[in-house]
Amino acid sequence: MSFAATILTLYPEMFPGPLGTSMAGRALERGDWTCEAVQIRDFATDRHRTVDDTPAGGGAGMVLKCDVIARAVDHATALQPQAPILAMTPRGRPITQARIRELVEGPGVTILCGRFEGFDERLFEARPQIEEVSLADIVLSGGEPAALAILDACIRLLPGVMGAASSGEEESFEDGLIEYPHYTRPATWEGRTIPEVLRSGDHAKIAAWRKSMARETTRLRRPDLWERHGDAPDRSASGAQREKKEWDQ
Amino acid sequence: MSFAATILTLYPEMFPGPLGTSMAGRALERGDWTCEAVQIRDFATDRHRTVDDTPAGGGAGMVLKCDVIARAVDHATALQPQAPILAMTPRGRPITQARIRELVEGPGVTILCGRFEGFDERLFEARPQIEEVSLADIVLSGGEPAALAILDACIRLLPGVMGAASSGEEESFEDGLIEYPHYTRPATWEGRTIPEVLRSGDHAKIAAWRKSMARETTRLRRPDLWERHGDAPDRSASGAQREKKEWDQ
Repeated sequence: MSFAATILTLYPEMFPGPLGTSMAGRALERGDWTCEAVQIRDFATDRHRTVDDTPAGGGAGMVLKCDVIARAVDHATALQPQAPILAMTPRGRPITQARIRELVEGPGVTILCGRFEGFDERLFEARPQIEEVSLADIVLSGGEPAALAILDACIRLLPGVMGAASSGEEESFEDGLIEYPHYTRPATWEGRTIPEVLRSGDHAKIAAWRKSMARETTRLRRPDLWERHGDAPDRSASGAQREKKEWDQ
Repeated sequence: MSFAATILTLYPEMFPGPLGTSMAGRALERGDWTCEAVQIRDFATDRHRTVDDTPAGGGAGMVLKCDVIARAVDHATALQPQAPILAMTPRGRPITQARIRELVEGPGVTILCGRFEGFDERLFEARPQIEEVSLADIVLSGGEPAALAILDACIRLLPGVMGAASSGEEESFEDGLIEYPHYTRPATWEGRTIPEVLRSGDHAKIAAWRKSMARETTRLRRPDLWERHGDAPDRSASGAQREKKEWDQ
């Protein structure tokens, strides 16, 4: 079963874009996921294919029309009734790794990309199944770069994509914490050596050191995460808690 | 003066990628910004152009070698001594709109993209000018999608890029808050009407309604932001406070 990504966008040419190369690109070629970018403009009904209009009450910018967007959303829903629909908007709930893991367990995801000042609010009232999601507390030109990041996060978790680069076991090792520091050869570089413990060959000691470093790093760098996760006793990995962050190939 | 973006990456073909189209693409063509993707592998010195090695102390995955990465960073520093160097890593400080605004006021930015398990920690000890930055609390396959999002956020703020779509004045209107809801034609859609106040023509009343909706939305949806910004009295716009989020063309 492929993970089906449908993107509703005014810029379908942005997809798969960077996800057509590297690990995600190889997974796309293998058919581990599919990528369908749907042009929102195709759901406009007037001669000019209008998708936006001036804000009611005045002000700068343009607002995406609820009637056009709703038709695009209904189209995606008809294609894939079981897939969650995410709208990338700065007003949304910040995305979490736990939500990414949930998405990956499903049949796919539809991502609606905002542009201009945003969507007519009635869209979300009339289509309550749309989940408003925010990537970060920064202002993007539109939802497309955010959709690419979310899809990238999903794709790497698909079965067979990461391979042995990082096992699920390793990933849930220090749930809720940011990662301990890494070292590799050379043993000495610019006068700096790899911490002694990592060269000890004592695996229990190494594991304890890494855990303590992960906790300390999280406490110092991300007091917000630490408050939510860090001082709890050891927990087994559950979806909501497996938020340890690392890069994988 | 162009805003010079230098990206240190194992996948230079991902850039400018989506930033070569739409608003960012037009700005690139005009020369408002430049995009140079530098292949990290070019700074390896062995026959196999090795950039990574197994983690000291054991474990899954590979670690980016500090010697190779430092040479790439030093190359970027020599090209653009004044540009800040951001390393995209989940261990970094979460990016903020205030930091984006600071970056845009400078000559450009160098972004170092992580892959695999991350960087050898000694890189950051030996090159303390590198700023470790995280995009969101999700796990990406590498720093590239994060770099694209950060560059997109920078580019839209460059002089002349947004045009009149959204004025700076409008953007700092409700500093520290997420945006009020938007509406546009049709006046009635699926039985839902645009709020009366927005059709009143009373600009003071509209402004007050929007401000109150922005505050209420922030309080309900983002208690974390609200705690930091929301209950303060009105402030004039300063870099650190202009965090209102909206899409712009």
